Amino acid sequence: MPGLLHTEEGTTTRLYAAIAAEFVCSFLFAFIGGAALGSSAAAANGIALAVLVYVAANVSGGHLNPAVTVATLVTGHTSVARGLAYIVAQTAGCVLAAGMHILLIPKAHDVGCFAPNGISLGQVFGWEAIMTFLLVVTIYSVAVGQPDFGVMGPLAIGLAVWAAALTGGGFTGAALNPARFLGPAIVFGCGWGAAPAYIFAELLGGVAGAVISWPLYGTGLQFGRWAD
Amino acid sequence: MPGLLHTEEGTTTRLYAAIAAEFVCSFLFAFIGGAALGSSAAAANGIALAVLVYVAANVSGGHLNPAVTVATLVTGHTSVARGLAYIVAQTAGCVLAAGMHILLIPKAHDVGCFAPNGISLGQVFGWEAIMTFLLVVTIYSVAVGQPDFGVMGPLAIGLAVWAAALTGGGFTGAALNPARFLGPAIVFGCGWGAAPAYIFAELLGGVAGAVISWPLYGTGLQFGRWAD
Amino acid sequence: MPGLLHTEEGTTTRLYAAIAAEFVCSFLFAFIGGAALGSSAAAANGIALAVLVYVAANVSGGHLNPAVTVATLVTGHTSVARGLAYIVAQTAGCVLAAGMHILLIPKAHDVGCFAPNGISLGQVFGWEAIMTFLLVVTIYSVAVGQPDFGVMGPLAIGLAVWAAALTGGGFTGAALNPARFLGPAIVFGCGWGAAPAYIFAELLGGVAGAVISWPLYGTGLQFGRWAD
Amino acid sequence: MPGLLHTEEGTTTRLYAAIAAEFVCSFLFAFIGGAALGSSAAAANGIALAVLVYVAANVSGGHLNPAVTVATLVTGHTSVARGLAYIVAQTAGCVLAAGMHILLIPKAHDVGCFAPNGISLGQVFGWEAIMTFLLVVTIYSVAVGQPDFGVMGPLAIGLAVWAAALTGGGFTGAALNPARFLGPAIVFGCGWGAAPAYIFAELLGGVAGAVISWPLYGTGLQFGRWAD
Repeated sequence: MPGLLHTEEGTTTRLYAAIAAEFVCSFLFAFIGGAALGSSAAAANGIALAVLVYVAANVSGGHLNPAVTVATLVTGHTSVARGLAYIVAQTAGCVLAAGMHILLIPKAHDVGCFAPNGISLGQVFGWEAIMTFLLVVTIYSVAVGQPDFGVMGPLAIGLAVWAAALTGGGFTGAALNPARFLGPAIVFGCGWGAAPAYIFAELLGGVAGAVISWPLYGTGLQFGRWAD
Repeated sequence: MPGLLHTEEGTTTRLYAAIAAEFVCSFLFAFIGGAALGSSAAAANGIALAVLVYVAANVSGGHLNPAVTVATLVTGHTSVARGLAYIVAQTAGCVLAAGMHILLIPKAHDVGCFAPNGISLGQVFGWEAIMTFLLVVTIYSVAVGQPDFGVMGPLAIGLAVWAAALTGGGFTGAALNPARFLGPAIVFGCGWGAAPAYIFAELLGGVAGAVISWPLYGTGLQFGRWAD
Repeated sequence: MPGLLHTEEGTTTRLYAAIAAEFVCSFLFAFIGGAALGSSAAAANGIALAVLVYVAANVSGGHLNPAVTVATLVTGHTSVARGLAYIVAQTAGCVLAAGMHILLIPKAHDVGCFAPNGISLGQVFGWEAIMTFLLVVTIYSVAVGQPDFGVMGPLAIGLAVWAAALTGGGFTGAALNPARFLGPAIVFGCGWGAAPAYIFAELLGGVAGAVISWPLYGTGLQFGRWAD
Repeated sequence: MPGLLHTEEGTTTRLYAAIAAEFVCSFLFAFIGGAALGSSAAAANGIALAVLVYVAANVSGGHLNPAVTVATLVTGHTSVARGLAYIVAQTAGCVLAAGMHILLIPKAHDVGCFAPNGISLGQVFGWEAIMTFLLVVTIYSVAVGQPDFGVMGPLAIGLAVWAAALTGGGFTGAALNPARFLGPAIVFGCGWGAAPAYIFAELLGGVAGAVISWPLYGTGLQFGRWAD
């Protein structure tokens, strides 16, 4: 996979470019995905994510999601400093997207907000954890498994979100991403009661998806072409 | 194709990892695919299968379906011991998915169940046999034909289910997979009257799809990079 | 591209395998695509075609369409004898699919039939010619252009039908394929009044799509890896 | 990427072939994409664009959009003379498509026209600029980033339009392309009041998407395999 999950250390300029890519691509992902409605939402989010992982992969590794960044912290593929910078950039991108929705969509008082739909917070936790687990196990599989799946990696990652959102979207809105949850929550003040259920589930599911790659593929540091 | 249908013999650890991959990925496939509703179901199942074959391919070969495992038994690509372990793991994964549906979906008394919709059991047999034939002939084509289709293999396999389910989903629910049928049947007690029609059709269609690869491509053991 | 449009001469056995692949895959394409309904039809046909071109590419070149076979006759990539055998096999596969629809679908008196929907026969001719032109120019581009698009070829071919059918499906049903038109016409007796408009348009559009590849890419025999 | 954004200088014949490819493929893109209706429109446009970038990539670089051509002018990948010829060819192709819609669609008095849907012209500007930025940043990423994404490039480009149109289609119709706007505007006289908002936004968004590739990837002339 060209650049996927790969963070090339080197000059400070490259680090700034990586953070900028996480910011810009998270903005675009949340701007397109957050405003998609009804039966279009699953496809819009999955396809937009695939495209933006292609865009960011060679610059930042294409995380675009704090749950992914935390998972790569746990498995030692991202340093703490870089990880924190990514998470700030991802969340700022999603905040900007919500702000742009206010400017560009009439009566945009809750665009992109997540809320349980007829299920309990415990059930939200289960759905978001399993769906984020699927997302992160996909990321590790296409990037760590040898031989890898090369140029198909970003598409497979987007397809994981598309499939998850087709089913889970009706129950939780299918966030799978703390930054996507926090962007509209910060701007519109929506969803804070459910925030712990969403965010802890996503972090837990993401870390579990990364850790399970160890027995399946061996550790990424052995197999991979990553550096940080 | 990296790992597709490929089962790397070696340590017992690798075998355990393969069985674990079949269990985890069958669970995720049935969890996402089984709870998808209406016009989303075909896409959710096809896309989820593509993603999970990417995930499992390098570990277990990515069968995720007893009809596929039985077909590879017949063509000599999987040993009987491994095949039985895979089938148990696949079915257990689908049972777990149905159990998780009870926990995470309100009033989930028949989530993921299959039943004929306005057609006879004989017609169910025909649809499921032809659709599973399509699935397995696709698997063999992308993995056995030389030159192969490399990283596109898992996507093509998922697309086969997507297309089949768009048409056949309205008649049979488009199971194409005995484990997917058995998971909800065991947990919810649904569909047992139609079970033989579904399961025998899928096994027959799958074996036929594998056997037809002999005259078309030669035998896989000659062409392939498989071991078991 | 592994095998796409490629017909490997050699033993008579290989020729029989190629004809068998055209028959089996045309049957599966018409069986799945012909019975798809409403808003599912475009996706079902495009995705099924992509899958079946993956299946047949290494054996027969993956024509699955008399308009494609005639185009390759005109550009010298297929011999007359092979071309005639392919066309018979393609049409027989579509006839078998319509017969199977009778067995497996209740009240299947016009499954898969094509008819103009609110447009004239001249307009049918225009739509079918332009859509088949798009299909065949795509086939030649991904297989003849150098460097080629490798394993993406069959997917691009299926996507061409998917896009065309999303738009043109509402006007003509989006056949793009004389065998697909003839299968249900022979079995159910439907559509014969419009048959010349469909079939001549498809043949004309297909040949035009092949011939335009000469000024764009040079002749296929110079660039390609084809034999016949 | 085979040929993507790549314009091979050489004989005048090659230049004519490139201009012809931009004309023919822009016609097909506007013919299929412009007549797609309702919930089919996003998929039809994104998929058709992916297919036609595959078709044109090896001949013209596959711009099919004046916003893309202007962006490559700014970054020095296309000469002024070639760029002007491409823009004329793209617009002429879209005009021809609108004319063909008159012939082939009953009561086609506004097929393919773009107009704001419940938003202001300023909001149209924002949507079209951001969506075209997404499209062009995708193009540069898949073609300039090293290692590149090879045969997936045209698909990623089409997916960018598909995702954007799923969300933005309801507000602006999701043109992202001055030629697509101008074709029906010239033929049917529609949309001229909004023309500056659409066209300037698309050019601005496209150039911004190209320029941002400099800090992220370095300049294309350093990294790329382009010539002009």
